[in-house]
Amino acid sequence: MPLYTPPLAEMRFVIGNVAGIDQVRALPAFADVTDDLIEAILNEAGKFGAEVLAPLNPRGDHEGCTFDNGVVRTPSGFIEAYQAFIEGGWNGIGLPAEYGGQGLPFLLATAVGEIWTAANMAFSLCPMLTQGAAELIEAHATAELKARYLPKLISGEWAGTMNLTEPQAGSDLARVRSRAVPEGDHYRISGQKIFITFGEHDLSENIIHMVLARTPDAPPGVRGISLFLAPKFMVNDDGSLGARNDLRCVSIEHKLGINGSPTAVMSFGDDGGAVGYLVGKENQGLAAMFTMMNNSRLAVGLEGVGICDRAYQRARAYARERVQGRAIDSADAASVRIDHHPDVQRMLLSMKSLAEASRALAYFTGACLDIAHNHPDQAERQQALGLVELLTPMVKAWSTDLGVEVASTGIQVMGGMGYVEESGAPQHLRDARIAPIYEGTNGIQALDLVSRKVARDNGAAATRLLALMRATLSEIDTGAKGQIGAIRGRLLQATQDLAEATEWILETFPHAPARVAAGACDYLALAGIVTGGWLLAKGALIAERNLAEGTGDAAFLRAKLVSARFFAETNLSQTPSLLARMKATGDALAGIDPDHEV
Amino acid sequence: MPLYTPPLAEMRFVIGNVAGIDQVRALPAFADVTDDLIEAILNEAGKFGAEVLAPLNPRGDHEGCTFDNGVVRTPSGFIEAYQAFIEGGWNGIGLPAEYGGQGLPFLLATAVGEIWTAANMAFSLCPMLTQGAAELIEAHATAELKARYLPKLISGEWAGTMNLTEPQAGSDLARVRSRAVPEGDHYRISGQKIFITFGEHDLSENIIHMVLARTPDAPPGVRGISLFLAPKFMVNDDGSLGARNDLRCVSIEHKLGINGSPTAVMSFGDDGGAVGYLVGKENQGLAAMFTMMNNSRLAVGLEGVGICDRAYQRARAYARERVQGRAIDSADAASVRIDHHPDVQRMLLSMKSLAEASRALAYFTGACLDIAHNHPDQAERQQALGLVELLTPMVKAWSTDLGVEVASTGIQVMGGMGYVEESGAPQHLRDARIAPIYEGTNGIQALDLVSRKVARDNGAAATRLLALMRATLSEIDTGAKGQIGAIRGRLLQATQDLAEATEWILETFPHAPARVAAGACDYLALAGIVTGGWLLAKGALIAERNLAEGTGDAAFLRAKLVSARFFAETNLSQTPSLLARMKATGDALAGIDPDHEV
Repeated sequence: MPLYTPPLAEMRFVIGNVAGIDQVRALPAFADVTDDLIEAILNEAGKFGAEVLAPLNPRGDHEGCTFDNGVVRTPSGFIEAYQAFIEGGWNGIGLPAEYGGQGLPFLLATAVGEIWTAANMAFSLCPMLTQGAAELIEAHATAELKARYLPKLISGEWAGTMNLTEPQAGSDLARVRSRAVPEGDHYRISGQKIFITFGEHDLSENIIHMVLARTPDAPPGVRGISLFLAPKFMVNDDGSLGARNDLRCVSIEHKLGINGSPTAVMSFGDDGGAVGYLVGKENQGLAAMFTMMNNSRLAVGLEGVGICDRAYQRARAYARERVQGRAIDSADAASVRIDHHPDVQRMLLSMKSLAEASRALAYFTGACLDIAHNHPDQAERQQALGLVELLTPMVKAWSTDLGVEVASTGIQVMGGMGYVEESGAPQHLRDARIAPIYEGTNGIQALDLVSRKVARDNGAAATRLLALMRATLSEIDTGAKGQIGAIRGRLLQATQDLAEATEWILETFPHAPARVAAGACDYLALAGIVTGGWLLAKGALIAERNLAEGTGDAAFLRAKLVSARFFAETNLSQTPSLLARMKATGDALAGIDPDHEV
Repeated sequence: MPLYTPPLAEMRFVIGNVAGIDQVRALPAFADVTDDLIEAILNEAGKFGAEVLAPLNPRGDHEGCTFDNGVVRTPSGFIEAYQAFIEGGWNGIGLPAEYGGQGLPFLLATAVGEIWTAANMAFSLCPMLTQGAAELIEAHATAELKARYLPKLISGEWAGTMNLTEPQAGSDLARVRSRAVPEGDHYRISGQKIFITFGEHDLSENIIHMVLARTPDAPPGVRGISLFLAPKFMVNDDGSLGARNDLRCVSIEHKLGINGSPTAVMSFGDDGGAVGYLVGKENQGLAAMFTMMNNSRLAVGLEGVGICDRAYQRARAYARERVQGRAIDSADAASVRIDHHPDVQRMLLSMKSLAEASRALAYFTGACLDIAHNHPDQAERQQALGLVELLTPMVKAWSTDLGVEVASTGIQVMGGMGYVEESGAPQHLRDARIAPIYEGTNGIQALDLVSRKVARDNGAAATRLLALMRATLSEIDTGAKGQIGAIRGRLLQATQDLAEATEWILETFPHAPARVAAGACDYLALAGIVTGGWLLAKGALIAERNLAEGTGDAAFLRAKLVSARFFAETNLSQTPSLLARMKATGDALAGIDPDHEV
């Protein structure tokens, strides 16, 4: 079986029919993004993912990274793959053309990003972080820093990192203690950072660290944190590399997964202080960081999508070969392929439809981001940004929870073989398990959703999202039968449940925020399911129309209807109980004693 | 933090108040099982688990087993621990006294088994399989085989294994191909077996393999499979060990978890045929195997319980130390322990209440098994056996699914630290993931539940179980307030949903078994949740009474009420949607094309 087959037909379908490429192309910035261009990019990315990155995925997992006296070596083959990656121009496809990027729509970069993470999640983290660093610099750094650092970050010749976490400061960045003391045109940084993905490695000639630290007179808490750029090697005026900066990797973690990606403990300033340049204003480091948070969280959400698809492909391939047991509804004593058993079909279709729903959600959010950044009309930009902000925690948390669930289901489909490392199935579960944690835990995403995204704007963005769902519902005849009729019934109930859940949050948050916090993860799951189910319904409507008109690949379109209906019956059907639990959990926690009762 | 603290107070509570030790002690066989005896056994087992087995758990995971030219070595320390284990008499505590066992109630053996698997799941598999082999021999072998093999299997001087699976015969044992050719008083066995847990190791001086194979004239399918006993070393008439038998381990698997437990590929008969002795009658090997299936499935279900508790203990200890973030409902800017955050409390209480519910279910089933085997009245034995058979797939599948879920939640509670192997949290997820697969996949458990346990007896056992639940409900005042009132409301609805689901299965199975099969896993989850929730409600009622009377440890009893109520609000509340999905999944699968739409 092939290691990974990028789902190009599905990607085209979602880009074209669900996420709304036409709206993106209507933006002046993207008027020249033709179908041919999209096709060429997806094909080339698919080829690179399948032929170069996917074969390195098990090897990277098996070999892992090595640490020796400050030097980190990535698994064999990673250096060559990275070279080919940047020579192909892939590093900067969504980054500004002004500094050498390709300036393509985020929607398209999202699809390409799915390929990288599905093919090799550990590898994909290096370019993901480099892009995040580039975005931070582009948005907040001085013209001089931009000129010096952006072109090589965008080309990928240099890699980037995010140095946020410290032993006492994980989810709570107010507790950051690293120090930055001004000295001439720069600062001297000292402190320890942990969990720094690709904090040290051998893929690029320089590594540009984005570091959170406090200046000597900074106020305590989040309002006293500044952002700095600290290169591994100093950069001379002519762009050549100078001396080694005073920062080093002191160890790497032994993790459950993403073993091809080094997770570094970084020490800054052991010899007097690492040179760092202020990015943005003093004490506004967290605010600066937040401007790139949407993109990073969407990228992590994509890891969930990629794992779902990859695990699904592997389990499906196994189930199509494995013969075991008789059909339950036949007198025939012959053994059948296991994908003929209802319970295996249930597992496979669950994996498939969750991959499709999470993909649709991520791509749709990507398209909204393009509009939010590029629409000529400010009100339109604002509206789109509201949607992006509402959808981002769903993409990040719902999709990554699904990644874990689907990877686990994939092992189950493959039985004993799925538990053996050589089958490849365990790696997906091990890799997937980090995504609900980093870039803001899923619990924090849920809290962000209910408080900052729903309660703070008094439900305005959620109301807009619900209106979009109702518009889709209004396109379906109330007497519709078959797959579409079944989808309509489930979606109607589910949107009502989402509306009720949103009302409850708006009513409850002001006087009982702890009760809302107790139900936040259920609200997020409910919102993710309904939004994913709505987007699958949009796709199903198009599929039905195309089938009626005889356009497109009939087998593909029928399969879209099957999975949308399956998702409706098995996921949209769960919203009443999610709603009930969302409201009830806070009651169960009220007044408990954490010392004895938790 | 301690590696593992056996939850002795909770175990005593469940044994005494929920599972029904009084009913077990009312059996003549167990009249002498005093409270003092129970206390002594739990204390000693707890000590051995905490002090000897638990410290070996991470080491066993890290070192794993090694294979070298047919020889398998277990991780360092396993040999000494095993010696201490059998010297302590632990191997035979639930096995018949006639051959040297202690003949204690299965209920008590269940509690002790939880300690072994929670402390060190990989280690615990060796005695678990030995006990299974001993039970098979005791029930089906000739007096001569019993005399020769049972005493040393029960003492643990020899270990036992189950050789069922072959490359083409996993869930579908009808496809077993291994051959057994008669020769004098024995047979010559040849063939390959895979996934043989502790198929070869260095813990015991001999290994007794229970092997499924076909005699030359056997009919095809499951009716042509016989069961054989094949020792690693032949046993002389005086009990001493003779020549090596013609069977060997040819490799061991590289697995996701349970690395301290070797999973062997076994080859029988490379040099003409391994000597094997028929156990039971020819062609009745599967039927014989089924007599011990209940016990083995309960033992695997216990692995789920043990992992839930172990992962919970670890996450709770972390959450009590880790300070991060402010309280959401306080103006105080000081950071708090993370177990003060509602979402972390939700995760911890979810882990705790699922551990408690699955434990209550396993122990209750253990008590039913004691009654089924030992009650003087045959009708009582039959009724109890009906309950055991109904509950066994729930214990096996529901608890092991929970093990995976709870271990994953434990990682989430611990954040980035939970993803690092040194924290211990990843091992629980990796270990837990096998339990839904072996000893009959959870999908097969669900099919067994709906077809053989519900449909075949026309719902008689399920009706009895529902009557027990209603009896508990009738003990609660309809106007009850507080925790008990909330529990009553949820349990009432949930039992109605379980009754409706059972009715649907009975109505649907005869004419549309594939639709029932599509919903079988949801039925099993629903039944597990309602039964677990019912048993927690039973415990909550006792806790409330004891609190009112001022007897017992008030903090412990209040915590029982909190977790029972939490479970009711968060799990019993989900039954309406599980019921809906159970019915709807078959609709979504109807008529689909596995080649293109799955």
